[in-house]
Amino acid sequence: MTSEIHCDSLWHGADIVTMRNGKYHLIKDGAIAVRDGKIVWIGEQPSMPALAAAETVKFDGGIITPGLIDCHTHLVFGDNRSGEFEQRLNGVSYAEIAAQGGGIISTVTATRDTEEAELLEQAFFRLRPLLAEGVTCVEIKSGYGLTPQSELKMLRVARQLGQLLPVEVKTTCLAAHAVPPEYAGRSDDYIEMVCNTLIPEAAAAGLADAVDAFCEHLAFSPSQVERVFVAAQKAGLPVKLHAEQLSALGGSSLAARYHALSADHLEYATEQDAIAMAAAGTVAVLLPGAYYLLRETQCPPIDWFRKHGVSMAIASDANPGTSPALSLRLMLNMACTLFRLTPEEALAGVTVHAAKALGLHESHGSLETGKVADFVHWPLARPAELAYWLGGQLPCTVIFRGEVRS
Amino acid sequence: MTSEIHCDSLWHGADIVTMRNGKYHLIKDGAIAVRDGKIVWIGEQPSMPALAAAETVKFDGGIITPGLIDCHTHLVFGDNRSGEFEQRLNGVSYAEIAAQGGGIISTVTATRDTEEAELLEQAFFRLRPLLAEGVTCVEIKSGYGLTPQSELKMLRVARQLGQLLPVEVKTTCLAAHAVPPEYAGRSDDYIEMVCNTLIPEAAAAGLADAVDAFCEHLAFSPSQVERVFVAAQKAGLPVKLHAEQLSALGGSSLAARYHALSADHLEYATEQDAIAMAAAGTVAVLLPGAYYLLRETQCPPIDWFRKHGVSMAIASDANPGTSPALSLRLMLNMACTLFRLTPEEALAGVTVHAAKALGLHESHGSLETGKVADFVHWPLARPAELAYWLGGQLPCTVIFRGEVRS
Ligand SMILES: [Zn+2]
Ligand SMILES: [Zn+2]
Repeated sequence: MTSEIHCDSLWHGADIVTMRNGKYHLIKDGAIAVRDGKIVWIGEQPSMPALAAAETVKFDGGIITPGLIDCHTHLVFGDNRSGEFEQRLNGVSYAEIAAQGGGIISTVTATRDTEEAELLEQAFFRLRPLLAEGVTCVEIKSGYGLTPQSELKMLRVARQLGQLLPVEVKTTCLAAHAVPPEYAGRSDDYIEMVCNTLIPEAAAAGLADAVDAFCEHLAFSPSQVERVFVAAQKAGLPVKLHAEQLSALGGSSLAARYHALSADHLEYATEQDAIAMAAAGTVAVLLPGAYYLLRETQCPPIDWFRKHGVSMAIASDANPGTSPALSLRLMLNMACTLFRLTPEEALAGVTVHAAKALGLHESHGSLETGKVADFVHWPLARPAELAYWLGGQLPCTVIFRGEVRS
Repeated sequence: MTSEIHCDSLWHGADIVTMRNGKYHLIKDGAIAVRDGKIVWIGEQPSMPALAAAETVKFDGGIITPGLIDCHTHLVFGDNRSGEFEQRLNGVSYAEIAAQGGGIISTVTATRDTEEAELLEQAFFRLRPLLAEGVTCVEIKSGYGLTPQSELKMLRVARQLGQLLPVEVKTTCLAAHAVPPEYAGRSDDYIEMVCNTLIPEAAAAGLADAVDAFCEHLAFSPSQVERVFVAAQKAGLPVKLHAEQLSALGGSSLAARYHALSADHLEYATEQDAIAMAAAGTVAVLLPGAYYLLRETQCPPIDWFRKHGVSMAIASDANPGTSPALSLRLMLNMACTLFRLTPEEALAGVTVHAAKALGLHESHGSLETGKVADFVHWPLARPAELAYWLGGQLPCTVIFRGEVRS
């Protein structure tokens, strides 16, 4: 009597790039068996055990990777800033644009003024191209409302996106993104409101999976960020931080002290920051789209992250001001071209390390027995092609929780 | 008795970005009437004359632009160089890669060794994403064969792409792209073969719409290029030139002397070159993908081109070594972000000026009465969004020669 593994589906006929431990760990001529949306067996087709599959899909070559994870986005916002983009290129100065109510405040105004249903529709159309590229999990931040009511509205929209579309959505409360106009000159008062009202409400409503803040001269100081982190801990939520993008304030070391899931941007992080992040298991989320668009010249300290074993993720930072990026695939190329990551590191950055940056590394990010069956079949010969091409080359098939996503 | 304009189709319900004279020239609430694949009337819907249309399409808002034109690509080649891309990022030097037979020579070898049908299939899959982005006209160069037989094979593949897919293809013979290994140290002999055999054969077979060359220390000298230009003139073909990419050799002024359709790259062009190009009507084709991928720091002299009235086009330069770019939309953003073009200049660069770079300005590149009815309906509010977004936002509908392309 043979003992068979029963499963819902069996997928084979392609090479599998498992990304186990952040490496390709390629399985030539691989097979994946799925039951209840999870991988129950993965390995070389010839060494497959006896399997009874309700459905079998045979691919005609190509490669399979884990579903891509975009672990840092601001996809929910009212309107966009293409008008301002054009003004700047026509020579209008930042100061003039700010005087017109431009910059982040224009997005805050538009987001506050936009109905929830309309915000949802706009974000829906921004999320779809990411999905078309093989994204199966996306993080979405609030941060353009800056009032309890409008921040919760943004978070509800993010949650609804995960119900409307076949994608895993993780939400992050980024109320400490900017000082809203009504708190001008009273940033401490704003932080107090965020800590005492906004974060507890978002947590109580189950709308936030994490809390984030923007630590920068033009936003919040490390001591203000620390108050936000304490409030997040009290609410039982893990933290993340926008840190060291434009200057070195020690935000990433602060994030590490609070065992942050990730510190993001990091152009000005120091070796000490890298050591602290490695010790805390805090992921370095690199955002090459913003670096590119702002024409920055200071790269994040990749060599220190490598030396000290900091996990590096890559994300789109999709936002209307500094990275109107609706392509995670492009970020792979930018991480390689601009930050000199290898294609393997870049792919780890949108799979296994991105999962870790969202606290999902037990269940997502690599193709291993027991993990969620989110994977992508690509019409490519080598995994390096995912980072090599600029545009084009969309997936053949995306499998989300064990089922073909159409 | 009313005199009606009879037409095959009428398109309305969107704003039209005509790009007449290289400017947006926006028609609010516009309408386009098409007969026999050409525009017979365009203007504001309310001022439309009496029209009898066999078919009427009403859009629900959004904008219409001319079909996009990618006026400089090397889309036909064997294999790709993603392996080399990965090696370089893993620290393998250019010298080591060259010693392994890497670089352009590996593409030449693969292209020579690949059957015509297989070359066609590979190029087909590279061209499709460009079409999905709204490209209705594309130039495709030879230049990886470097023998009469294999250069003609490449040009036949390019011609076939235009028959297989709903896109206008213009072919360019770029036999003077590199010195092939069998002519090592004998570049003059190679140029002689190109001038006496290859160009005449390509012209006689009707396979080349233009002739191009690569003027650079690592390729051909201005005097060798001039011999190629003379041979092209003798064959009745207009010329183009890869010039001033890595150094200033005066190629663009030489191109202007031969009334070249375009000079391309131009990072090191001088003000004198710009003056000569303006006088000759030679278009400056800017290739930000290669600039980005090679991490160049010297920008093409945009201000001189503006000052002297040189038309600027933008293209993907799609090629396996220095610009594996299958997105023309991304090139719009790169032209703005890296070269500081305005979104309007960038859009002119892939429409009216790109048409001029292919000798098609009488018939293509802008939406005006008498021109070919190639246009694109976008789900966008402002034309600047075409350059603003990084990825995403594909067209709703592409109309090619007056008919919806599916
Ligand atoms: Zn961000
Ligand atoms: Zn080229």
